[in-house]
Amino acid sequence: MKIAILGYGTVGRGVDSIASGVEGLEVARILDLPDRCEGPRMTSRYEDIVGDPAIEVVVECMGGLEPAHTFILAALEAGKAVVTSNKAVVAAYFEEFARAAEAHGTALLIEASVGGGIPWIASIQKARRIDDVTMFSGIMNGTTNYIIDAMAKSGADFAPTLARAQELGYAERDPSADIDGIDVRNKTIITASVAFDVACTQDVPVTGIRNITKADMELFARHGRVVKLLGHGLAHDGAYAVAVEPMALPAASLEANVPSNFNLVTLEGATVGKLKFYGQGAGSLPTGNAMVQDVLDFAEGRRPSYRFADDLASDPALLTGSYVLRTTAAPAGAEPYDEGAWLVNDITAEQASRIYQDSCATDPTTFMARLV
Amino acid sequence: MKIAILGYGTVGRGVDSIASGVEGLEVARILDLPDRCEGPRMTSRYEDIVGDPAIEVVVECMGGLEPAHTFILAALEAGKAVVTSNKAVVAAYFEEFARAAEAHGTALLIEASVGGGIPWIASIQKARRIDDVTMFSGIMNGTTNYIIDAMAKSGADFAPTLARAQELGYAERDPSADIDGIDVRNKTIITASVAFDVACTQDVPVTGIRNITKADMELFARHGRVVKLLGHGLAHDGAYAVAVEPMALPAASLEANVPSNFNLVTLEGATVGKLKFYGQGAGSLPTGNAMVQDVLDFAEGRRPSYRFADDLASDPALLTGSYVLRTTAAPAGAEPYDEGAWLVNDITAEQASRIYQDSCATDPTTFMARLV
Repeated sequence: MKIAILGYGTVGRGVDSIASGVEGLEVARILDLPDRCEGPRMTSRYEDIVGDPAIEVVVECMGGLEPAHTFILAALEAGKAVVTSNKAVVAAYFEEFARAAEAHGTALLIEASVGGGIPWIASIQKARRIDDVTMFSGIMNGTTNYIIDAMAKSGADFAPTLARAQELGYAERDPSADIDGIDVRNKTIITASVAFDVACTQDVPVTGIRNITKADMELFARHGRVVKLLGHGLAHDGAYAVAVEPMALPAASLEANVPSNFNLVTLEGATVGKLKFYGQGAGSLPTGNAMVQDVLDFAEGRRPSYRFADDLASDPALLTGSYVLRTTAAPAGAEPYDEGAWLVNDITAEQASRIYQDSCATDPTTFMARLV
Repeated sequence: MKIAILGYGTVGRGVDSIASGVEGLEVARILDLPDRCEGPRMTSRYEDIVGDPAIEVVVECMGGLEPAHTFILAALEAGKAVVTSNKAVVAAYFEEFARAAEAHGTALLIEASVGGGIPWIASIQKARRIDDVTMFSGIMNGTTNYIIDAMAKSGADFAPTLARAQELGYAERDPSADIDGIDVRNKTIITASVAFDVACTQDVPVTGIRNITKADMELFARHGRVVKLLGHGLAHDGAYAVAVEPMALPAASLEANVPSNFNLVTLEGATVGKLKFYGQGAGSLPTGNAMVQDVLDFAEGRRPSYRFADDLASDPALLTGSYVLRTTAAPAGAEPYDEGAWLVNDITAEQASRIYQDSCATDPTTFMARLV
């Protein structure tokens, strides 16, 4: 089967090196910028790929919204399957892509967009053959997990740890997509869409970990807790809710013990119970592996369908809980939690997000975490 | 698709209740003892099932070697697919079953034989489409994990905790298959056969947790470690080795934090890295879920093949490590580890198993764990 790779960066090279070792797969064309094209496989003209009837699968590793959105749509409309690791473009255009794939008798495969090498999307779809998925949650961003874990192990504060992560290539030069929770937001939208069979395009309450300090981690440690950034969602009784927020988890939970840049994602179904999946959430080879697995699934005839059929209503009240804010002025209705930190009970993730933003207006260093 | 269930105990009832809710599946016949047969679906005559051409899948939930072995073989020879949760019979007759399935153009599906509801066997087979699996390890027995976890949480010693597990139905009246590691041995043989593509029928070094005491757990806790019972295996350079043994793991590892009767299994491949899977390793609904997933895979055309083709040699030296023995007399070559406990470095799992048995001859209360 002939495939084409769009973008020859870290992930594209990973796909190329893995696919080249798999019998029956041939990386026939690679799209990159004109000044980076070397050898007969590489081209800077997308028409060479989308117009080539011999190419059956387009593997999109460019990232970003455009031209990825246009290229993916054009490939699907040409009847080619699309495999993508691009969470931003899938979160933004999931329904449009899925409908185009169905209309043109081909497939959209998105395993690598969440959880890197972890077989997460396929596992959700498999679970849904028997169970409704009623809950998901997970550490879905390796960069922020690396930062928090390194702070805990080294005793260093946020800024030098972020700088170190940038040196190591774990964090981007502009880290905001990671530390402000935007990356997890995209992965949470994709997961909710697959897990709950819903067109999850609503505004998701998102709180990041930009303001976490070593002192915050020590404060929560005194209460037997470890902070991690998670995306999560619940669905029952015709309603669903999702959010992205720092959580202060029991120190003996699996999530609290996830090291370095690993991911850990959980789903729950009525008969299977809780299933958890752990692995490399990013990186050239794990992400490349997930994309080649998608290509092989397609080659074996798998055509995942995303119907967005469940008429679930968004109901923020499903995600009600208790939140701790470390901030100078006590939020309304708060009680003392620890020195300089306040506890607000029985609020939704959406309300918590607003209280956090209000507190940041007074004290821009405010940190907030949900108690789990 | 019409299926038949052999054995209507905990697992058989789970399969029945789950399959009844899945469109396209019909539990047409159920085999049980004559005095337990009620209603038109139930029969005590296996001929009613194996001789009925309308039945496409036989779901074996009887457990034990006979008549399960005979019934499975007869079903495969009649061209029916077999789904089984029976680790003892698969570990003993895996190659015979797989060859019969292939010869008669049908399938043997064994997801539920290891890890209950965890998609473990399917994940290994999926990983192997791209990577050689070079390592696996896991907490594969919920009963012993429950006992160890309950001892740690309650402060009670082994005997009363085992009695409590028996009361709750987590442990059998004869607990030896669990606490002596026989159940994990069967699951380790099955996992190695699938992961390494080898006919793993050799004698596996097996050490159980029958002799663990509260004091042993406290001793390892002073060294920052938690004891769990694991099966594990390695394969590289044309050789492989497997073993079942208590391991003293870092307290911050995921394995050390697996609660109650849950399982956690790990595989490693060159490109995907380490993947870990966590879930209910037993129970009516999780095990029933895995079996119905196998039925659905078969209905969708999946025909897993087990070739036992890799000509790997058994090489115990692959599993060399350091072991701690709590016993009265110092084993040969041991150095002191802690009060009443000895450290033996650079021995294989096989040698460790022999040293443990020798020590037990002198001190029948001896406990041993591998340092990880």
